[in-house]
This record gives sequence, C-alpha cells and structure tokens, in this order.
Amino acid sequence: MEELPGALGTSASLALRLGQAIFAVASLLFMCLEVEFYSYTAFCFLVTIMGLIIPWSLTLAVVDVFSVFIKRPARQPGMLSIVVIGDWVLSFLSLAASCSTAGVTSLLLASGGFCGGKLCTRYRLSAAMAFLSWFLSLTSALFNLWLLPSV
Amino acid sequence: MEELPGALGTSASLALRLGQAIFAVASLLFMCLEVEFYSYTAFCFLVTIMGLIIPWSLTLAVVDVFSVFIKRPARQPGMLSIVVIGDWVLSFLSLAASCSTAGVTSLLLASGGFCGGKLCTRYRLSAAMAFLSWFLSLTSALFNLWLLPSV
Repeated sequence: MEELPGALGTSASLALRLGQAIFAVASLLFMCLEVEFYSYTAFCFLVTIMGLIIPWSLTLAVVDVFSVFIKRPARQPGMLSIVVIGDWVLSFLSLAASCSTAGVTSLLLASGGFCGGKLCTRYRLSAAMAFLSWFLSLTSALFNLWLLPSV
Repeated sequence: MEELPGALGTSASLALRLGQAIFAVASLLFMCLEVEFYSYTAFCFLVTIMGLIIPWSLTLAVVDVFSVFIKRPARQPGMLSIVVIGDWVLSFLSLAASCSTAGVTSLLLASGGFCGGKLCTRYRLSAAMAFLSWFLSLTSALFNLWLLPSV
C-alpha cells in the first residue's frame, strides 16, 4: 500500500485532524462564551455540529498518533469505510451549519440593532472558523475516499 | 464499459438532471415572483446559484438525450472530469445556498413581523426546493464520480 499523504494514519492526516478540532473549538468559543445563542436556530445547529466534530476529529487524531508514532497500522477496510462515511456526513453538516450561521449573521448585521458591533464580529468569526473546519474536514474526506479502493 | 444507472448518458441520469432543473426553477419562482428578495444576502445567493444550476442541468440533460435516444455515446474522460468537478462544485454551492436561506427564513419567522405568514411559507418552500435540487445534484455527482475510474 503506497503512502498517500493526508490519508488515515499519516502525519499529514494528524495535522488535518488537529486543525479541524482547533477551528471547531475556536468556533464554539466565539459562539458560546457570554452570548445568548439559544434564540437562533442556526446558531444552535452550529454549536451542535461543532460539538460533534471535536470528539470525532480528536478520536481520529489519536488513531493517527498510534499509527505514526507507535507504527501500528490502523487501516482495515471496514474501519476506513466508517471513517470515510463519517467524514463526508460531518463535512456536509459543517458546511450547512457555517453557511446558515453566515446567512443569519449577515441578516443581523444588515438589519442593525439586533447585535452590537462586537457581538456581530464574534458571530462572523465563529462562522469563519466553522468554514475553515469544514474545509479541512473536506480535505480529509477526499484523501480517505481516494485511498478507499486501494485498501 | 458497464452501464451504471445514473451515470452520464443513461436515462436515469436524464431523470436526475430534469429533476434538478425542475426543483431549481420551482425554488427560483417561489423566491422571485413579487417578492423583494434583494434585501437579504442569503436570498440573492440562492437566486444566483439556482440560476447557475438550471443551465448546467439542462445542458447535461441534452447530452443525455443525445446519448439515450440517438445512441451517440458521450463519455470522453476529459468531458467526464469536467462534469464531475462541475457537479461537485454546484452541489456544495446549492447546499450552502439552501442552508443559508433556511437559516434566514427561520430567523425571520422567529422574529415575527418581518414577513407575513404567506411570504414566510414561500421562503420556506423555496429553501425546501433548493434542498431537493441539492440532493439530486449530489446523487448525480456521486454516480459520475463512481464511473470516473472506469473510463
């Protein structure tokens, strides 16, 4: 099996997973800390999805750490299929969450008065972080999908 | 080359393309007719993306018609790659557009007063149609991606 950088069990994959988790945590912090996000459906959706991405990415980061540092290969076909499906589902969900957050934030900004300048900036940053997390998640999903037929 | 139902040049693909175009037209009609959608960024985005999906799907529907009824195969590797890339990009964009529309609509509904009952229903229907169009577009993209290595 050739080593495809970015696929499950490589150091590039570890970096991608850590990036996803970090951006998801940043998005969650910007959204949650001292903000009443409960009143907006889109923001609740974002918080839910980011709360799903963090454990998923951290678990796979641990798998990568085992594979990279302890040299224990972690690629069984069944496991890789589950990882690919989970990655794709989470990547679609995080795209949906970040886009709905961005839409709602732009509406709040345009209507004025609903969020002060600082609060709106935080919503925007949260949407941007979720978008970055989606991008890394999509990259992981593509690399793993590419690897799938060769396992 | 085996016949994969749903891939470019089959009657299932023709049905998928027509479905995409019909749902996109429905979404556009619900959004545009006698409604001031210009004031919301998310709605403008939806209108733009649906306006891109309609010609794309109709063009590929014509290709399918040629392939199915006139028996002229339309699968060159280069062409299929372009179709797959376009399908994926449009499917991501339409997911983003439908989700941001849904987020904004739910916010408008919750805040009340910004849209009457009938107007909000139309926004919702538009988002639902865009979502269905996304689903069919993703199906096409998956089938064509599956076919890509065998061409």
